Amino acid sequence: MSAAPIPQFTPLDPDFAARVRGSFERQAAMRTVGASLTRVEPGYADIYLPYREDLTQQHGFIHGGITGMIADSACGYAGYSMMPADASVLTVEYKINMLAPATGELLIARGRVLKPGRSLVITQCDVYAVKDNEEKLCAVMLQTLMVMHGVSDHPIKK
Amino acid sequence: MSAAPIPQFTPLDPDFAARVRGSFERQAAMRTVGASLTRVEPGYADIYLPYREDLTQQHGFIHGGITGMIADSACGYAGYSMMPADASVLTVEYKINMLAPATGELLIARGRVLKPGRSLVITQCDVYAVKDNEEKLCAVMLQTLMVMHGVSDHPIKK
Amino acid sequence: MSAAPIPQFTPLDPDFAARVRGSFERQAAMRTVGASLTRVEPGYADIYLPYREDLTQQHGFIHGGITGMIADSACGYAGYSMMPADASVLTVEYKINMLAPATGELLIARGRVLKPGRSLVITQCDVYAVKDNEEKLCAVMLQTLMVMHGVSDHPIKK
Amino acid sequence: MSAAPIPQFTPLDPDFAARVRGSFERQAAMRTVGASLTRVEPGYADIYLPYREDLTQQHGFIHGGITGMIADSACGYAGYSMMPADASVLTVEYKINMLAPATGELLIARGRVLKPGRSLVITQCDVYAVKDNEEKLCAVMLQTLMVMHGVSDHPIKK
Repeated sequence: MSAAPIPQFTPLDPDFAARVRGSFERQAAMRTVGASLTRVEPGYADIYLPYREDLTQQHGFIHGGITGMIADSACGYAGYSMMPADASVLTVEYKINMLAPATGELLIARGRVLKPGRSLVITQCDVYAVKDNEEKLCAVMLQTLMVMHGVSDHPIKK
Repeated sequence: MSAAPIPQFTPLDPDFAARVRGSFERQAAMRTVGASLTRVEPGYADIYLPYREDLTQQHGFIHGGITGMIADSACGYAGYSMMPADASVLTVEYKINMLAPATGELLIARGRVLKPGRSLVITQCDVYAVKDNEEKLCAVMLQTLMVMHGVSDHPIKK
Repeated sequence: MSAAPIPQFTPLDPDFAARVRGSFERQAAMRTVGASLTRVEPGYADIYLPYREDLTQQHGFIHGGITGMIADSACGYAGYSMMPADASVLTVEYKINMLAPATGELLIARGRVLKPGRSLVITQCDVYAVKDNEEKLCAVMLQTLMVMHGVSDHPIKK
Repeated sequence: MSAAPIPQFTPLDPDFAARVRGSFERQAAMRTVGASLTRVEPGYADIYLPYREDLTQQHGFIHGGITGMIADSACGYAGYSMMPADASVLTVEYKINMLAPATGELLIARGRVLKPGRSLVITQCDVYAVKDNEEKLCAVMLQTLMVMHGVSDHPIKK
């Protein structure tokens, strides 16, 4: 099964890519697991995660929670690319099905917007495990995001 | 809202607690994020995750994917405690709703079995954020596990 | 496992019960399947569905989609009870796990609010199958609702 | 957005289409709501549901639970087409996101298999609302099915 096509959306914010990349840089958790934001388009983002032994579960595969984590961010940034410049993004919920063990050298999470909206954005992510240069679909996520208008994407004082 | 009661199940394997703890120790990803398995009962497991700045998203809260990760493991080990001694556990899918930002000093993921079964085990997890010794429900997960009869819980050669 | 306690919330609209019942009456689909709204409390609603042969799937059990339908409405009305008087309710998404076949004389869907909010309300529903006066948990739902402020709960011209 | 391509799978049972259609005929609930199984391919099934006023919610749109019901069956039969001749199909769980109101003359639920398996089959469904001959994506479902080997697809004595 080949990857779903990248959606053709018109972003509200022409500087969406810089805004998305800046937010990703502030996700310390992405650095901690070694994930990088590889591509950003309007309504699309993909994240690469090279295999690391310290990210595995008991069978030696990437932990399903780590797979969920990069899928959550790939969806989140696909959605954030479609939001206005003064908004921030919040994950309302997600659901992920694991289709195959996350083996190989690399995971690629490809997030895309299914439905942009003023208040909510619905996204989907396909996660592929790359082994010997071959991609295998290993997880699928459906996610709901909330657009937080007028909320800064920077750290919030608690 | 107080925590759901710990379920009253009879385990198939009297040594379930040692088996669960052994498997958790082999989840390198849990060590990487600093999570510990605090309690195991038949059909129940909880995981503690102290706040760390390198686990945050852009607002300075624990990343939703990290919350999902400890909830996935808490559910998984709640379910694994009810499986036979020669089985291994596999996450089929999970869905998580974020109810409040994961702020404070500590996250507690309390996983419990809703329905044990020969092939599938259905679990739920409530995640609490602890701030100034007060617990606040911050996420809820529903999860489906598969019982892999006769499959070792140790690393699988790929 | 006994039913979860009815939540203790303070409604925004003192006439919530009449408003919820009025909306339920306008759900023609509920009449078609023979469902009735049995109880409404702040943040809680239950729906009864007597067994009918014309609601079954191929094994003679109530169709899982029908179970989902009454759970969706029970959650929706649990949430709607907590919304302001001038709002309408919209289902954003739901996820349901089937735990046991929906056999017996009656299904009871008990929906309750996990987290009320200004924009979104998160709910849960437990569905019980009643056979020979014994209740058995047969499905669990997690759901996200949207509060549509200022939108009438009556038919919308298309 | 155009419809996802029909998957290219090889069925285990060459008579899959007759088996799927026979099972659909035994789903009394599908008759009750007026749904018909329009097309069956290996790993694919679609279901048509003409608009009927007695299937609506309070705004006059098709009830979200009805949308979920035909999506559940479309996914279920997409999966069932890939199962062996002596098996029966069981819905483990599903999650559905509502993307737009189910308005218009007709709903089309297009279910397809994402991952066939010996024990579990993972499926996805896109539901389109057809108005004035134009299709609009109104819901997306992710679903997990269980293969019940050696279990008849006919009514089970309770």
